[in-house]
Amino acid sequence: MAPKYVYINDTFVAADQASLLITDLAIQRGYGIFDFFKTIGGKPIFLQDHIERFYNSARKMHMEIPYTHEELKAILAQLMEKNDLPDSGIRLTLCGGYSPDGFTMPAKQNLIITQLPFKMDLSLNTKGIKIVTRNYQRQLSGMKTIDYSMAIWLQPFIKENNADDVLYHDNGQVKEVPRANFFMVSQANEIITAKTNILPGVIRKNLLALKNHDFNIIERDFSLEELYHANEAFITSTTKHIMPVVQIDGKAVGDGKAGKISAALLDLLVQKVREHQA
Amino acid sequence: MAPKYVYINDTFVAADQASLLITDLAIQRGYGIFDFFKTIGGKPIFLQDHIERFYNSARKMHMEIPYTHEELKAILAQLMEKNDLPDSGIRLTLCGGYSPDGFTMPAKQNLIITQLPFKMDLSLNTKGIKIVTRNYQRQLSGMKTIDYSMAIWLQPFIKENNADDVLYHDNGQVKEVPRANFFMVSQANEIITAKTNILPGVIRKNLLALKNHDFNIIERDFSLEELYHANEAFITSTTKHIMPVVQIDGKAVGDGKAGKISAALLDLLVQKVREHQA
Repeated sequence: MAPKYVYINDTFVAADQASLLITDLAIQRGYGIFDFFKTIGGKPIFLQDHIERFYNSARKMHMEIPYTHEELKAILAQLMEKNDLPDSGIRLTLCGGYSPDGFTMPAKQNLIITQLPFKMDLSLNTKGIKIVTRNYQRQLSGMKTIDYSMAIWLQPFIKENNADDVLYHDNGQVKEVPRANFFMVSQANEIITAKTNILPGVIRKNLLALKNHDFNIIERDFSLEELYHANEAFITSTTKHIMPVVQIDGKAVGDGKAGKISAALLDLLVQKVREHQA
Repeated sequence: MAPKYVYINDTFVAADQASLLITDLAIQRGYGIFDFFKTIGGKPIFLQDHIERFYNSARKMHMEIPYTHEELKAILAQLMEKNDLPDSGIRLTLCGGYSPDGFTMPAKQNLIITQLPFKMDLSLNTKGIKIVTRNYQRQLSGMKTIDYSMAIWLQPFIKENNADDVLYHDNGQVKEVPRANFFMVSQANEIITAKTNILPGVIRKNLLALKNHDFNIIERDFSLEELYHANEAFITSTTKHIMPVVQIDGKAVGDGKAGKISAALLDLLVQKVREHQA
């Protein structure tokens, strides 16, 4: 089940040989963007949202993707055909490019497309996860950059705190998890997600856009203090859909079990993904 | 005058072929550290300071350099002999390593050592540079990480402001330039450099440690407001030694010319480098 090919710039190369010269600005200066979507049964999920975000991140970071949306989709289709991995995660990465002086961004960036086996497993979503909070505001937060320095640096901190992940807050204002957006369900059953200085997640977007339901889903900033009194909390991401958060900073959220509203929203989302696949 | 070799992990490879697999955490997550020193006439300048900082950055970032100081120095000596570039810049880079899942840090990091021709040219230091300020606090600021996302992203901003570089301040508290430390000379002729949340620069360190002079050099945080009334200002870095700043946010510093104290300190530093070489 290993992927056979990776796409780099204009070429398909053997996956285990795919490399970049060390003059690339990702290696020299941590400069790059990416996007990541899953395929289920050979069908990319929310592809248009991911493509649009990828081009948007590139433009805002002064980088260029040398293809139209349609050309890129054709390359993705070729890659999927060559690798034959119906259930997978596909990552589009745009690195800064080969810089002659290791600092100046060249005209041409380096595009890498990888595909790895990935199968959604929602059985874990009934158990939920524990998180620990940390004061940190991501830089360039609206773009999906490759900068996860803090997230990786905090891995020992997460373990020491017996948590599964970390929730960033900016001086008490709740923001996001390194690889996921964050939602709380208030005591009035409002479903709230931070509005400013966060990554615009694709699952978050599709959750906010859900129709035909009686939930009250709101984008607005909220505080840790408010969160500590929440009925439920959950994170949203491409690999987890909606994952309940059952403990924050060692304290149970609500009754300490995966919440009913989180479960109902997950059902709605799974339904939307199915319609998207059809 | 092109360098012939790059050292990667245990091997010298042809400089133009040096590459990393795309699974390295620098490419995937912008995770890595580096250090950079110059050689003059074949002699590394302030090598011990750079080596110590490199190991310190690695340790604080939970990474491992698989050599003792002495082993690393022996590799550096071999590289210098092979490349035969007496006046050069040598960069030690430690990338996160090949991660199986693109997020978890593996036990083994990737070490890269490059050497490029570089010759100090202090003639530009009599002219000075213009800077524009920007509210930004570097993350993980005490370690020399490869994260220069903001610095590269701000290049168009620097140009639009007719400046040569950007000075970061944290809500009005002056910090540093992306690749240099920053000093101001107050109206009382105190020479002041920020104390907290900055990169511990090697030239900065050696300037603070200068002996046998009558200057009053102080480490303490100071504000933009204080800076706007400075007599002189300058930056310090391995490639520039002491470079006067003659304009900040479009306003002249002092009389708008490279300052006398900056010039005197540069003389002292050049003297110290000469002694170091001897």
